[in-house]
Amino acid sequence: MTEAVSSHQITEFITRHTPFPDALGIRVLHAEPGIVHMSIAKRPDLRQISGFFHGGVIAGLADHAACLAAGTALPLGRAVATIDLQINFLSAADGESIIARAKTVQTGKTVCVATVEISTMLNAQERLCAISTVTMRTTDLPPEVLKQMASKSTGG
Amino acid sequence: MTEAVSSHQITEFITRHTPFPDALGIRVLHAEPGIVHMSIAKRPDLRQISGFFHGGVIAGLADHAACLAAGTALPLGRAVATIDLQINFLSAADGESIIARAKTVQTGKTVCVATVEISTMLNAQERLCAISTVTMRTTDLPPEVLKQMASKSTGG
Amino acid sequence: MTEAVSSHQITEFITRHTPFPDALGIRVLHAEPGIVHMSIAKRPDLRQISGFFHGGVIAGLADHAACLAAGTALPLGRAVATIDLQINFLSAADGESIIARAKTVQTGKTVCVATVEISTMLNAQERLCAISTVTMRTTDLPPEVLKQMASKSTGG
Amino acid sequence: MTEAVSSHQITEFITRHTPFPDALGIRVLHAEPGIVHMSIAKRPDLRQISGFFHGGVIAGLADHAACLAAGTALPLGRAVATIDLQINFLSAADGESIIARAKTVQTGKTVCVATVEISTMLNAQERLCAISTVTMRTTDLPPEVLKQMASKSTGG
Repeated sequence: MTEAVSSHQITEFITRHTPFPDALGIRVLHAEPGIVHMSIAKRPDLRQISGFFHGGVIAGLADHAACLAAGTALPLGRAVATIDLQINFLSAADGESIIARAKTVQTGKTVCVATVEISTMLNAQERLCAISTVTMRTTDLPPEVLKQMASKSTGG
Repeated sequence: MTEAVSSHQITEFITRHTPFPDALGIRVLHAEPGIVHMSIAKRPDLRQISGFFHGGVIAGLADHAACLAAGTALPLGRAVATIDLQINFLSAADGESIIARAKTVQTGKTVCVATVEISTMLNAQERLCAISTVTMRTTDLPPEVLKQMASKSTGG
Repeated sequence: MTEAVSSHQITEFITRHTPFPDALGIRVLHAEPGIVHMSIAKRPDLRQISGFFHGGVIAGLADHAACLAAGTALPLGRAVATIDLQINFLSAADGESIIARAKTVQTGKTVCVATVEISTMLNAQERLCAISTVTMRTTDLPPEVLKQMASKSTGG
Repeated sequence: MTEAVSSHQITEFITRHTPFPDALGIRVLHAEPGIVHMSIAKRPDLRQISGFFHGGVIAGLADHAACLAAGTALPLGRAVATIDLQINFLSAADGESIIARAKTVQTGKTVCVATVEISTMLNAQERLCAISTVTMRTTDLPPEVLKQMASKSTGG
């Protein structure tokens, strides 16, 4: 990472400019190269039939957090695309929010791997509710995204 | 399944009464015991940064289709909860819609497994863009859901 | 594939020259570009505690079959290395042998994906006992392997 | 666990009495309820074509370690059977031995999940070479195994 654009700025920028993660209301809690924490607050349309967070929301959050954990660990201008995602749902995501903590375990030239722990927060108590492993291939960040990001960071 | 409630009615009812799948705009194309086909039409908020369907949307569709494929294969009143989901993204979901075709490969007393093929439809051409394996455990359908579903089906 | 070296020859050669698959007694039943069928006969040392085929044996067979399905679909001299493997055990592998049928669903420049169905054969009845998805990256076949293989094929 | 039979005794007993793990030469390094460490020393027949540990050996070790991590966390007489296994190969297992460290992240009534980190040891340097997530269902230990294990532990 250059000093000009921090991992947090990149993660925030990509999250706000990627429609689905933005629509889920993903918030960036923390970002450093290879490590990203994000959360989603409960909302009626994100529920499954029993009222808890739907598995698709949890998988979407895990995927996005993993991609940014890997992306911030790569040189500026490089990004990742998910090859495959595996997720285990351990218990009902019955809290007011879910938090994903992603960290890279491999940052290769062609393949990156990140593991993600997803917790749910209920009455100020956090409980692990899912774990995920995301495998990605490296790619170039679309040039227009890179340009927008750079202009924003120098302008701000 | 009883004759009174068809697989298609169950699948449609659950899809419309589960907030997140309903919010994604999932449509039921076909349902019979153990086999479910569903689709999602493109919408701005379902995109990733390059403009294609986001992986989280594809994973959410795969999960929902797999759960209904298994659910319709079980006796009425029984349902499933996802234990784990594994999905491979094979190519960009660059079409106007995505279609998931789920079928059960195991319908056990405690564990069910379904495989899902997800295609994207562009200019009337369909192309495989992801494959998924979903592992579920059997559970009881919440009684209020069962009651609502029964009343709706007998009421016409 | 060149005409000089058939998919079957490559698959047989690699199987006999890779120590672990050879030690498992893997037999090649069928090979064409992108599709490979292999089997293992029961042997006391391949069992789990209940007397059936051990999951590690089944996973090893799935991995090897997937790698050859992908390898035979690539240009001569190219091979694959497994990135990740996911396998569901559906029922006890209680037969006299297990058979894996692997086929590629993606043959990319950097990533290949194959699905594998593993059956067990008991009293001339075949039953699906596991399914697997194997994700691989492409690589070069070690030159000495390629040389050995070529010399054998022209010599034979 | 009763005091009469320790996690280490159970793990050692099951490892020596399960043919395939025993044939792989698996050694038990450490066992407590929910946590098991095991290793395999290099041997010519356990290699892949480049001379490193074969992925099937690594997957077999991960599976066995995960099952014992879960098994030792359950009441005596209960055991697990693998539902599915997912493993990422991060780097070549090029060392003199491989070591698996398994720990349970869920110990439910019907489903258990364990994560496993597999390292390879080369010149007294340990390096992570694979990570695995294993999902299991609980079951009863075969009565004859339980009897043998009990007789051995009281007799010894």
